[in-house]
Amino acid sequence: MKLNFSFLFALVFILTSCKKETTTTTTENDTSSSHPKLILTKQGVSDIRAQLGTIPLFDETLAKTKAEIDAEIASGIHVPIPKDLSGGYTHARHKKNFLVLQKAGVLYQILDDEKYAKYVRDVLMAYAKMYPTLPVHPQTRSYARGKIFWQCLNDSNWLVYTSQAYDCVYDWLSKEERETLENDLFRPFADYISKGNPQFFNRVHNHSTWGNVAVGMIALVMNDDELLNRALHGLEVDNLPADAKDNDGGFIKTEGQKVGFLANLDEPFSPDGYYTEGPYYQRYAMYPFLIFAQALQNVKPEQKIFEYKDGVLLKAVDALINLSDADGEFFPLNDGQKGMSYYSRELVTAVDIAYKYGGENPELLSIAEKQQKVVLDDTGLAIALGIKKGKAKPYIKKSIELRDGANGDEGAVGILRSDPMEIVFKYAAQGLSHGHYDKLSFSLYENGTEIIQDYGLARYVNIEQKGGGNYLKENKTWAKQTIAHNTITQNETSHFQGKYKIGSKNHSEKYIFDVSDENLQIASAKETNAYPGTDLQRTMVLLNDPFFSKPIVLDIMKVTSAKANQYDLPFYYLGQLIQTNFTYEVTNPPTELGTKNGYQHLYKEAEATSNGENAKLNWLLNNKFYSVTTTTSANDEIFLARIGANDPEFNLRKEPAIIIRKKNTKNAVFASVIESHGTYSPVSEFAVNAYSNVKHIEVVYDDAKYTAIIIETTENTTKLFIISNNTNSKETTHTLSINEKNYTWKGTHTLQKIN
Amino acid sequence: MKLNFSFLFALVFILTSCKKETTTTTTENDTSSSHPKLILTKQGVSDIRAQLGTIPLFDETLAKTKAEIDAEIASGIHVPIPKDLSGGYTHARHKKNFLVLQKAGVLYQILDDEKYAKYVRDVLMAYAKMYPTLPVHPQTRSYARGKIFWQCLNDSNWLVYTSQAYDCVYDWLSKEERETLENDLFRPFADYISKGNPQFFNRVHNHSTWGNVAVGMIALVMNDDELLNRALHGLEVDNLPADAKDNDGGFIKTEGQKVGFLANLDEPFSPDGYYTEGPYYQRYAMYPFLIFAQALQNVKPEQKIFEYKDGVLLKAVDALINLSDADGEFFPLNDGQKGMSYYSRELVTAVDIAYKYGGENPELLSIAEKQQKVVLDDTGLAIALGIKKGKAKPYIKKSIELRDGANGDEGAVGILRSDPMEIVFKYAAQGLSHGHYDKLSFSLYENGTEIIQDYGLARYVNIEQKGGGNYLKENKTWAKQTIAHNTITQNETSHFQGKYKIGSKNHSEKYIFDVSDENLQIASAKETNAYPGTDLQRTMVLLNDPFFSKPIVLDIMKVTSAKANQYDLPFYYLGQLIQTNFTYEVTNPPTELGTKNGYQHLYKEAEATSNGENAKLNWLLNNKFYSVTTTTSANDEIFLARIGANDPEFNLRKEPAIIIRKKNTKNAVFASVIESHGTYSPVSEFAVNAYSNVKHIEVVYDDAKYTAIIIETTENTTKLFIISNNTNSKETTHTLSINEKNYTWKGTHTLQKIN
Repeated sequence: MKLNFSFLFALVFILTSCKKETTTTTTENDTSSSHPKLILTKQGVSDIRAQLGTIPLFDETLAKTKAEIDAEIASGIHVPIPKDLSGGYTHARHKKNFLVLQKAGVLYQILDDEKYAKYVRDVLMAYAKMYPTLPVHPQTRSYARGKIFWQCLNDSNWLVYTSQAYDCVYDWLSKEERETLENDLFRPFADYISKGNPQFFNRVHNHSTWGNVAVGMIALVMNDDELLNRALHGLEVDNLPADAKDNDGGFIKTEGQKVGFLANLDEPFSPDGYYTEGPYYQRYAMYPFLIFAQALQNVKPEQKIFEYKDGVLLKAVDALINLSDADGEFFPLNDGQKGMSYYSRELVTAVDIAYKYGGENPELLSIAEKQQKVVLDDTGLAIALGIKKGKAKPYIKKSIELRDGANGDEGAVGILRSDPMEIVFKYAAQGLSHGHYDKLSFSLYENGTEIIQDYGLARYVNIEQKGGGNYLKENKTWAKQTIAHNTITQNETSHFQGKYKIGSKNHSEKYIFDVSDENLQIASAKETNAYPGTDLQRTMVLLNDPFFSKPIVLDIMKVTSAKANQYDLPFYYLGQLIQTNFTYEVTNPPTELGTKNGYQHLYKEAEATSNGENAKLNWLLNNKFYSVTTTTSANDEIFLARIGANDPEFNLRKEPAIIIRKKNTKNAVFASVIESHGTYSPVSEFAVNAYSNVKHIEVVYDDAKYTAIIIETTENTTKLFIISNNTNSKETTHTLSINEKNYTWKGTHTLQKIN
Repeated sequence: MKLNFSFLFALVFILTSCKKETTTTTTENDTSSSHPKLILTKQGVSDIRAQLGTIPLFDETLAKTKAEIDAEIASGIHVPIPKDLSGGYTHARHKKNFLVLQKAGVLYQILDDEKYAKYVRDVLMAYAKMYPTLPVHPQTRSYARGKIFWQCLNDSNWLVYTSQAYDCVYDWLSKEERETLENDLFRPFADYISKGNPQFFNRVHNHSTWGNVAVGMIALVMNDDELLNRALHGLEVDNLPADAKDNDGGFIKTEGQKVGFLANLDEPFSPDGYYTEGPYYQRYAMYPFLIFAQALQNVKPEQKIFEYKDGVLLKAVDALINLSDADGEFFPLNDGQKGMSYYSRELVTAVDIAYKYGGENPELLSIAEKQQKVVLDDTGLAIALGIKKGKAKPYIKKSIELRDGANGDEGAVGILRSDPMEIVFKYAAQGLSHGHYDKLSFSLYENGTEIIQDYGLARYVNIEQKGGGNYLKENKTWAKQTIAHNTITQNETSHFQGKYKIGSKNHSEKYIFDVSDENLQIASAKETNAYPGTDLQRTMVLLNDPFFSKPIVLDIMKVTSAKANQYDLPFYYLGQLIQTNFTYEVTNPPTELGTKNGYQHLYKEAEATSNGENAKLNWLLNNKFYSVTTTTSANDEIFLARIGANDPEFNLRKEPAIIIRKKNTKNAVFASVIESHGTYSPVSEFAVNAYSNVKHIEVVYDDAKYTAIIIETTENTTKLFIISNNTNSKETTHTLSINEKNYTWKGTHTLQKIN
């Protein structure tokens, strides 16, 4: 691989030198800085031009892009004085500008039509005219205010894209024009987001990544090693106070922490390519990581950036695709907005780059086919050619564990898949300032539809009417709180007291992740720090049994504490409640479930006191029937709850939950089975298999060493599941006596038919 | 047409006579009763066999049906003792049986494979063995209990389908077998649902239609003129008390009313083919109407049933297709379950029959293409051949007014369409016992998605967990009530006091329906009986204006009363509230909006007192932005409400509304504009045109003669709309002075740009 790139680089170099005279209007002597070189290369441009008209996906993308940019150019130049928050006109317009500029630059190169170069020059000149006198952005909400946008983050986005546009027209511009742009716009711009905002630039955070990359990209275009060094390694001096925090309550920097682009690659990415903030932000971060990597590879191949940390950047693309549901939508872990998917422009770039620089994995071609567009550069050409040659293979998402932490030792996200069900089980680290207090939480999907939901963030990104499109206060008061998640809340207090300072120092521990048996896939993890003195262990099993029409979920949440506590375990099912097997009292009108830590946002719609039998709730979503069956103890409380109390701006989605509460309890096991068992057709009006097929479940054994559950079906067959709680060796042989009968097995767990 | 059918009949007759010896195992002398003759004919069978393998849609349906029925036959015969309500096992099984029997009979004829005939015989024999000793069904909920099912209605369904099965195997059976079936099953069955249940059989109601048709179908198979006469004209003597009611509170019969199949065709169908109960029940009723019409046409062509009442049966199929949204789902008027569509088996039959007997309209072929199946008979053959020959044309649904009432003079349903928007405006009659108290209500669709909803029924059809799958009590306490609809409720009392006795005697009056200008389509109607002493007039305009990206709705609800009342006008928007332009007080916890007439099911989530300015609510649904802007007077109350109070079984959908309340008011105009104006992409995170483009609307003139509204856009253009309230002549010229300026126009209304 290394040799290939070197060779390619040499080739580009030679071809570039040869062709320059004919394709540019100015003549440069310094061939090492001949352009384009960042994302497009001279060789790439030449190849693309040669193939145009014969590469369908590339041609289609080009045609659409041309139509879009032609319309934009026809609409004139719009460079308003910055004023608005995200969602407002000036924000949206400047955002549009950088996207359009990047595309116009590419069109100039590919189509060799000066109209695009002129447009790029004219818009950049308008910015260069405005920038020197621009004050800091008038909106004061950010810890690092930008000039074009309300935060440096968006200013950095702007520079990442416009650097590419500048690279494309660099040779076409006159020396004077370049000097104006560099002196009045690019250099002061790069300085402002770095030296001017060390609290933004000198961190390990997705914000900083953008800042680093913005500076790095323009450095590569301008061939400025000082700036490039600043991008890669951060500012040498920042004078940041030790306890500085950002808007989300995240710490700016810990003592002795490395900063700059490489540090941002080192730390938040695990060896498996999982980005600690979660897939929504990983998607956002992938673009700058990969686009800069591509540029570095093109300009400074000696950096071997795609080999850095054992190829983590390429692994990250696969990790991200695996963090999406059947529709390609990312699991909304932590502050994730639902609906974001691998159809986003960031993932088009990521897939194309990963294909070209990652060994041309044919499964990526099928993702590109779904995306129905490519990047208009050398990577997009490779993808389009691969598809044209019929190389695409289906991308099969399997069960996978993605470790968290720079060294992969800070828990993980475990995904269990058995078509059509997917369990997303989170036993990871805090996830920086975008993390939620949701240790051992899970969500459940069927064929791309959330069944048991992770709420995601409380924000309407870029919808100005909702708090300027920014984080809403309910993100902190609700979405981040533990009770907003499908996990244990003890004593109505969130994990780590909801304190970032504590949470960010801790992570859950993986205990078992074993998907070797496709009919019994298991993930088990432990959390001992969320509530000091209380140990949590959750085991999730995705079970294929011929009796059930689809894979079922066995969920065992084991709680052990020296003192008595109250434990709440919610299931945020989505859909219409059809039936419960328990008698409840309706709370009319509904009352708030509590006063703080998220409880103030929950309405109690009904309340039941358990008789000690299984509690079962049957619901309907998108014409499918689901049931959760859960063990209870006598006098446990069961709440039917709904999100939406204390929500004066109607920011929350008013969706339901069932919550099991154990009071004044030291040790407890919540064992549950979740089934997708039936269908309804509003056209034929047939309800098929509308009832749960679980007759009874029971915790038949539980101590420090073992937990055993029986599942009895409606056809009276019974299976026994046993897990070893303190030895996760696959080699150990266990024998356990339950009700005077001995059970023997080898390994961490067993499932046996006992009736 | 008449000649053709006679000819066809003669031909069938001859061919039947010729072929009988070779295709049947018994020999009949009475050729006039040779079988099959109901739905399949001997000629049809011959044609189908000749074409098999060359008619894709027919062949596909046949293959699927064969696979389905082969699997059923393999599973054995299941004729359980009746026990359950709809949704339960015995109900579902017997329902499945009649559907399977009908198909098995058809397969016997088409495939000429005795296995299917044997299956039909064996299942029918099992019924014949059980039926003579069957008591009335043990479930007591129905006003007319069946024997196989809990209500005679389902028993009739059974007989309609099994008659067809019997017809298909009639000639194959021995005389003794036929005698057993007729004496032990079919005749007592027909007697039980007619003579045994006159309150079911002798009505004008969809229930009775099924009863009449069941008796008529078996009569045609058995060549029994007495039974046929009973089917067509009802029982001569029924001894029904004058005030008998059914389960839904509908009257069984009014004095002197005609009954039987023909009366059921006369009365509930309007000359436009609108069935007064609404499309959900029209769909349900179409099957027996059309299948019996087809059978009558085949056996008794002299009845000229398809010409009856100026061809109303064929018109009804077009009416029904027009009563569906862009996805083919029926508007859930009255007791309609959402999701029912022209993909239902009833509509497959209806479309196929309407095609063959209604002049082979090529637009119906495109519906059949979407349905992807045909009836396995002569009509399905015609459809499959038409499609094969490439005759299909798109079915274009236009704006249409479908008059209600036997003579078309009892109001109407007006549908205004301008892509992608559809307004469904209901100013019809009560709709028999399935009617809702919703005079002048409307709903709004965009491209097949409900934006402002009609709640539909409160029932989960055939979902046993929910009240046996039957009507829930909330259907009466909520779904039928006026406040559950997008129309005026006066003094918190439903129209006609919610009394069927009054409602069923009244209907709204159409005032204007003019869709001649595709950019200004208008429907206006009046209701003077819902609240004696109060006159309601609602005008709905679907307006195409280049300033707006999509057609907008102008809604003018004019109320005139001699005495002061309270008026509530809700808009049941679907989606997430994004923003209001008014300040409200949150009601936390929410309280019930009232104590009766549906108000007890509404939570008040917030309350505002108007300052007299426009009230605007902006919401998001499926990533589209909508706004309603409505005029208010100072001190009007505005409620943000939610369905779901007093709902102990969680039967209701907890969906939102905005309600405008005018208190202590005699005359009032509620003028509103509803816009679909923007989009959001969770992938690009761009919000486009997120805000309403209406700056201001105002009622600038209102008296008995005219109402005038101005709409000012955010670009400060202003348009004036004037409607004449008491002359709907298109020829009259009007002059009106508003603010000292004269406006002159010809016809019922005008829209003028005034700024």
